[in-house]
Amino acid sequence: MSPSSIIARKRDGHALTRDEIAAFVRGATDGSWADYQLSAMLMAVFLRGMNAEETAHYTDAMMRSGAVADLSAVRGIKVDKHSTGGVGDKISLPLAPLVAACGVPVPMISGRGLGHSGGTLDKLEAIPGFRTALTLDEFVAQVGRVGCALIGQTRDLAPADRKLYALRDVTATVECVPLICGSILSKKLAEGIDGLVLDVKFGRGAFMTGLPQARELAATLVRVGRASGKRVRALLTRMDQPLGHAVGNALEVAESVACLRGEGPADVMEITSTLGAHMLVLGGVARDDAEARARLEAALRSGAALAKFREIVVAQGGDGRVIDDPARLPQARMKELFVAQRAGFVAAVDARAVAFAALRLGAGRERAEDVIDPSVGIAGIVKVGERVASGAPLAVLHANDDARLAEARALLAEAFTLGDAPVTPEPLVAEVIGG
Amino acid sequence: MSPSSIIARKRDGHALTRDEIAAFVRGATDGSWADYQLSAMLMAVFLRGMNAEETAHYTDAMMRSGAVADLSAVRGIKVDKHSTGGVGDKISLPLAPLVAACGVPVPMISGRGLGHSGGTLDKLEAIPGFRTALTLDEFVAQVGRVGCALIGQTRDLAPADRKLYALRDVTATVECVPLICGSILSKKLAEGIDGLVLDVKFGRGAFMTGLPQARELAATLVRVGRASGKRVRALLTRMDQPLGHAVGNALEVAESVACLRGEGPADVMEITSTLGAHMLVLGGVARDDAEARARLEAALRSGAALAKFREIVVAQGGDGRVIDDPARLPQARMKELFVAQRAGFVAAVDARAVAFAALRLGAGRERAEDVIDPSVGIAGIVKVGERVASGAPLAVLHANDDARLAEARALLAEAFTLGDAPVTPEPLVAEVIGG
Repeated sequence: MSPSSIIARKRDGHALTRDEIAAFVRGATDGSWADYQLSAMLMAVFLRGMNAEETAHYTDAMMRSGAVADLSAVRGIKVDKHSTGGVGDKISLPLAPLVAACGVPVPMISGRGLGHSGGTLDKLEAIPGFRTALTLDEFVAQVGRVGCALIGQTRDLAPADRKLYALRDVTATVECVPLICGSILSKKLAEGIDGLVLDVKFGRGAFMTGLPQARELAATLVRVGRASGKRVRALLTRMDQPLGHAVGNALEVAESVACLRGEGPADVMEITSTLGAHMLVLGGVARDDAEARARLEAALRSGAALAKFREIVVAQGGDGRVIDDPARLPQARMKELFVAQRAGFVAAVDARAVAFAALRLGAGRERAEDVIDPSVGIAGIVKVGERVASGAPLAVLHANDDARLAEARALLAEAFTLGDAPVTPEPLVAEVIGG
Repeated sequence: MSPSSIIARKRDGHALTRDEIAAFVRGATDGSWADYQLSAMLMAVFLRGMNAEETAHYTDAMMRSGAVADLSAVRGIKVDKHSTGGVGDKISLPLAPLVAACGVPVPMISGRGLGHSGGTLDKLEAIPGFRTALTLDEFVAQVGRVGCALIGQTRDLAPADRKLYALRDVTATVECVPLICGSILSKKLAEGIDGLVLDVKFGRGAFMTGLPQARELAATLVRVGRASGKRVRALLTRMDQPLGHAVGNALEVAESVACLRGEGPADVMEITSTLGAHMLVLGGVARDDAEARARLEAALRSGAALAKFREIVVAQGGDGRVIDDPARLPQARMKELFVAQRAGFVAAVDARAVAFAALRLGAGRERAEDVIDPSVGIAGIVKVGERVASGAPLAVLHANDDARLAEARALLAEAFTLGDAPVTPEPLVAEVIGG
């Protein structure tokens, strides 16, 4: 069973067997397939597709390509959340401690930002001292002790995905449902979870702009996750304007802390509560959505959720005092108002344009090797539907460099659309799949 | 215009522009595209295809990726022949001197055998001393002086094809008409020819088994070759049984010499005359097929064609005495008859089975690095339609190794089908395209 004979079978539109898929994934892991063979296979999969069974075999082989965390010693039903990524998507930061505070263990392995999308790890690392590089043993121990750990992908977790993801990025084979499914689920299944809630985003600021493609991905993720014996639900949520008022790492940590104080922006609170409620139901600590929402509300009101965040921060070496005093987070040298040129109703805030402005300020990575400035970004972003006066602020630029500030200002000018008529924003959560 | 953006356009089914195709071919030549990007593109082309214009741009870019021979100093219309390859296909050996003897210069750059297909270079090198590795300057000078040169691909000729062909071989992207067209024509156009006759084979022993696919390739080759300003015709010829009676390098040289004496097997003579007649017409030395065939016949009868072969052999350092005394060619130590187990009519001789038997004897390469034994092979192969008695020879194995002989004998047992009814072989030349 040579690589080229397996590639030829997929090229000709055949469904691959479990053994053929295992050979491909093993080839990516141990180098027995050359990169050019892997990429020819990826393109064949992109154009020929994979059926449900193949996708499940692929995901399983990817998961088994490395270590799998054993969380069996941790009591309770372990539930994680995964988002396909958006602009201002800091949901993991308030959500994980909130759900853990309600008694559901949350083992969460996250990624870094690249391009217009931010990354949970980068946001957490804006907290002075915070370590995201725990070993798998430290990770398991902390989930047991604290109820939650927030770490980055370790070298030994799903190495086949790391290899194939890097290749997909440079061979135009990224936007492919079975390959995305394998990439997302293999890493999540390797965490040792029992349940998973997926936040599949669509819209201008999302990886997948169209609802139908997002729906196909969500359905595939739910089906394959359940075939692996996990409790899985997926939400389809709109990502046209940024989530919350802030885009930028320290700025988003501060907004997350505000959420845990019950003072967060309405959209961030809504997504957090909706995802959280599904996690509590999957985690078996609430019978239904109403009971789950009541428990989440209580954990916010009592301060238990905020305390859990502080506990996680301290457990991972971070400065817990940022929870009470966000001014301890890195601060940009310059703050500049970006104001409306006319009065009107905010008709649109282009998430992608805001993201690129933040990227220019240094809040993200244009290339994987770029270094992030945690302090910079854009705060105080108005929301669709708000009424603004001429000269009123639409956003605040946080910058450390004049040239970058000027570029970001120009990019931001494209982001806001003001109109004369009142605007009602579309609902945030469009659909629930598997609920 | 990054590699991945160009790959994405082909992936999505768009026609690529001349510039995009040039970037891809340049990427293969100068290494600015990684191998994994080249192979992803090759698979996208395999599955999405290329239209006529793209194929012409691709062929042109491949041709221009290296040196192009300048034959303008050679008088006459230079015409070459290319065959897609078959078993026992020694046609170039009698054809090139025969056509050159009729006054049409033949600049011929050929390849080596791999797998079940033989190579013209390997056959020529069975002649003691024969040098196939001339420089492009030596090549041009010899075509001018002798009217014909038979050499191998030089390093500076169509380097993009060498790179892409090696990748296609290991990524299941070989059997793709636009890619095959670019590979064949780029090298032929780089020879500096004015005209080209193509022998596109189909059947059991051919690279393409089906007539429709062979017809599509032939039509594409003619269209693209003409778009490059060349005189081009293609023949579709049947390759079910081996051509001639011999498969093996020295054995095929001997058979080629017999052809030039007018004593060759009927099928080899027919293909040689038909291709030769088209070459004379394209070369402007005959007005029509009848006149061309008469000239070829005269050149054979007068000994001019045989003398031209001797002249080429001597010009390229070979021992000209093999022309008069084929016993000077390398001889195998063992000769063993392979006899019929029953009487009957030969219903089929499986070219592929004969080829694999010859390969086991050492006549070809299973891997590119294998060394060929010029003396071994299979001679005296009966033809479809012949009547044989029980115990009469069907072939003669020429071997130098007992173990290989035993394996080849076993493989050969699968090759012959004897029946009770008389059999009429199908016509050799099925169609002429562009005639």
